[in-house]
Amino acid sequence: MPSITVLSGGMGGAKFLQGLLHGLRSGQLPYPADTRITVIANTADDLWIHGLKVSPDLDTVMYTLGDGIDPGRGWGRRNETWSVKEELATYGVEPTWFGLGDRDIATHLVRTQMLEAGYPLSAVTEALCRRWLAPVFEDTVRLLPMTDDRVETHVAIPDAESPSGKRVVHFQEYWVRLRAEVPAEQVVFVGLEASTPAPGVVEALTDTDLVVLPPSNPVVSVGTILGVPGVREALLDTEAPVVGLSPIVGDAHVRGMAEQMLTSIGVEVSAAGVALHYGHRAKGGVLDGWLVDERDAHHLSRIQESGIKTAAVPLMMTDHDTTAAMAAAAIDLAT
Amino acid sequence: MPSITVLSGGMGGAKFLQGLLHGLRSGQLPYPADTRITVIANTADDLWIHGLKVSPDLDTVMYTLGDGIDPGRGWGRRNETWSVKEELATYGVEPTWFGLGDRDIATHLVRTQMLEAGYPLSAVTEALCRRWLAPVFEDTVRLLPMTDDRVETHVAIPDAESPSGKRVVHFQEYWVRLRAEVPAEQVVFVGLEASTPAPGVVEALTDTDLVVLPPSNPVVSVGTILGVPGVREALLDTEAPVVGLSPIVGDAHVRGMAEQMLTSIGVEVSAAGVALHYGHRAKGGVLDGWLVDERDAHHLSRIQESGIKTAAVPLMMTDHDTTAAMAAAAIDLAT
Repeated sequence: MPSITVLSGGMGGAKFLQGLLHGLRSGQLPYPADTRITVIANTADDLWIHGLKVSPDLDTVMYTLGDGIDPGRGWGRRNETWSVKEELATYGVEPTWFGLGDRDIATHLVRTQMLEAGYPLSAVTEALCRRWLAPVFEDTVRLLPMTDDRVETHVAIPDAESPSGKRVVHFQEYWVRLRAEVPAEQVVFVGLEASTPAPGVVEALTDTDLVVLPPSNPVVSVGTILGVPGVREALLDTEAPVVGLSPIVGDAHVRGMAEQMLTSIGVEVSAAGVALHYGHRAKGGVLDGWLVDERDAHHLSRIQESGIKTAAVPLMMTDHDTTAAMAAAAIDLAT
Repeated sequence: MPSITVLSGGMGGAKFLQGLLHGLRSGQLPYPADTRITVIANTADDLWIHGLKVSPDLDTVMYTLGDGIDPGRGWGRRNETWSVKEELATYGVEPTWFGLGDRDIATHLVRTQMLEAGYPLSAVTEALCRRWLAPVFEDTVRLLPMTDDRVETHVAIPDAESPSGKRVVHFQEYWVRLRAEVPAEQVVFVGLEASTPAPGVVEALTDTDLVVLPPSNPVVSVGTILGVPGVREALLDTEAPVVGLSPIVGDAHVRGMAEQMLTSIGVEVSAAGVALHYGHRAKGGVLDGWLVDERDAHHLSRIQESGIKTAAVPLMMTDHDTTAAMAAAAIDLAT
């Protein structure tokens, strides 16, 4: 059975996966309906909060594919209640800026208790997916954390009141509380260099027919997955083509805060900037192909010059059919 | 300022405390309205569940006095939601028989996180009471756990499928799942002998004007508090009178499962049986006085013969005034 491996952040990756799965099941793609899909999800924006281990990207993928996501917010559970959050605020417990819904908390309780009993995050994820993915996809879709090790993204922001002039906050605080509205002077991936790929991750990259980088954040989502020692090497080794879709359209991110993150690492905020940052596989990079939006067609020649195959197509994930067409274009570019 | 110390289990103790506080504030008792009340609560039916530390008796007292209790159930929070419970059941997580409401879970999250950060249960309880008791009673009512150590009540029940013919379950499983409908062959207080009184407990017994044993379970509520090494000694030493109210009325418990528990330790299920089990202080027991219900007036002579002062009054806590009258009768008996 053919297989496709997808490196995913949260919302962008989850939405792409929905379109990919829709495309496979509706016959819009040159792969069979029961193609094996392995999702390697970013865990670098995980956090411990109120004593609970929260894995936002794993949960967004799991809830989205398992039809439990709140479609309006794009994260957390549908038909959510907020009693725990209200009570914690009444107790005066900080932080109040990270809202955990009641249904969502059940997931975190199961995860936390399993972790504390000694199970690795990958085993916990597999257990949770027995509820969310197995009933929908049987055993054709697997969700793997990029690593079982604790990795946390922290962001240095300007702080006039601090002697150093800056302050370091957890990525979630930068994103959720500060809405990425202050400059990210530096992004630090605590624990990333010492981490190892979770079981199955390297195999899913080397023993597959296609690797896709969906339009996720190139720094704090796909970038952290690539930062797990062994992942980049697996992508260099694999015989499968590696193709990505630009999260930057018209020199701005479609959603999220890729602009702030790219700026913080000195990468040009454009479809070409990201492509050249990832780099061509023949030159030690990770890409064989890179799909850009029609509006970015003027970047095609620069990308091609680096050796990366490229094409310009509509890249807005407005519905499942449109997203499936993006997946088809990515597959087309890879073959 | 005079002070009264109350040894409390869950519902029975909480209800008595409501009446006592009502009596003080309405001038029905020969103590000033701002009499200091210290509640020493049983923690032997605490449990860890879904990774959370739950202290049922502390919470029942706290929620009841802080006007957060669900009056219908008599435990847990008013306006409760049950999303987490639903979700845990959908995940197939055991046990499903112990229902934690969402609002209640916020309390357990705060408690668990503080315990895991190294705070003792007494400090956690004080922190939680800043929300529940301080706004209502300022600093006149204090709630102390009997101990900061882990103590758990387990119950041996008959089990035909077990080679030994019995099985040991946590007290909460006996009470909540099995509804105390099977005989309790033995009650085991794990950790009780090695426990020490929480800070303030001994002082609250020795440096007070009155000690009251409300109509709580004499085995698994008041009995466990008395079982903390040092507590019984403090009651023998104190100059304050110690007076109790019978939880057995008409040879049956008013609520709960005192009958099963008394039977398991071989104590006669009657107002006199419990009085003689507690014993007269002059003979190494804990009681100076013992209040029984009118229906149990035929027991008075047996109780008096043991040296314990006694009287028969209405002992049903039907409303705050009635309960305040019970408190008045207890005070009257003690003086």
